[in-house]
Amino acid sequence: MGKFEVLRIGHRPERDKRITTHVALTSRAFGASKMYLSKKDSRVVKSIDNVVTKFGGDFSVKVVSNPKKIVKNWEGKIVHLTMFGLPFQDYMEVLRSQRDNLLFIVGAEKVPPWTFELSDYNLSVGTQPHSEISALAVVLAGFNPSFSDIDFDGDLKVVPSLDYRQMVSKT
Amino acid sequence: MGKFEVLRIGHRPERDKRITTHVALTSRAFGASKMYLSKKDSRVVKSIDNVVTKFGGDFSVKVVSNPKKIVKNWEGKIVHLTMFGLPFQDYMEVLRSQRDNLLFIVGAEKVPPWTFELSDYNLSVGTQPHSEISALAVVLAGFNPSFSDIDFDGDLKVVPSLDYRQMVSKT
Repeated sequence: MGKFEVLRIGHRPERDKRITTHVALTSRAFGASKMYLSKKDSRVVKSIDNVVTKFGGDFSVKVVSNPKKIVKNWEGKIVHLTMFGLPFQDYMEVLRSQRDNLLFIVGAEKVPPWTFELSDYNLSVGTQPHSEISALAVVLAGFNPSFSDIDFDGDLKVVPSLDYRQMVSKT
Repeated sequence: MGKFEVLRIGHRPERDKRITTHVALTSRAFGASKMYLSKKDSRVVKSIDNVVTKFGGDFSVKVVSNPKKIVKNWEGKIVHLTMFGLPFQDYMEVLRSQRDNLLFIVGAEKVPPWTFELSDYNLSVGTQPHSEISALAVVLAGFNPSFSDIDFDGDLKVVPSLDYRQMVSKT
């Protein structure tokens, strides 16, 4: 499996700040190395930087002014998650066998037509409206099933527990 | 598999409106029959009612003033999703074999201690901070793997497509 990154398009700072933050945290937790954000939003970038400082890994959010250019220049396959696409279940094996880098695209509401046109796969998680966060999580969990074993080597670590909150800190 | 429902606790209307709406849409799309919401928010209820009117099914959001009471009186097992819990992967088979109704609890930020104490299972999706929407989606997709086949019998239906947005309407 190559590296994989996420492109978040259509972000509207006032409306989407928290949704986009969850998209970024989901990308990181399931093993992506970067999220491109199509509109500047320093609050999102800062929230994620704070999580990385505490919990480790080298994930980052990169603001890009021209998301179409990222897509056009991408070397590897592009997977657009959309409720209008084909069933993701039918493509998981193909995706897992990719040796090239993958780019997963998630939009906020309606995406521009080039998103469909320039993607190698337009895939859906069910055919009901739900959430780009859900779609990304389900697809990344299937694509990278060993996500729970990633060693983020952070200062803070959760100690899994039957019945309470427990964390350890290196410092 | 019995019915399953979702309890969303800790909702703060100003901050969480869209996140909670995504929690509800995810619950519906993956087959839950109801989401209990621990704080009144008519915008969330209305958004979901609109989706149900268009896309079908009988999912609803029920505002409850005392979420602890729902949990205490629940007949069946209770699954609390938390980054501090045990790996969900180890419990999916047990959950799928449950014949009783299940209640899945997702919180916003820090939950009250009774959530851990009254739940039968405190389960995590990885040990990194990400999103209650992601956690719910991954667990429900694993718990109800045939979610894509649910017939919501709605007025609007998506027609899965390789490369464009397509929907049909009955009316």
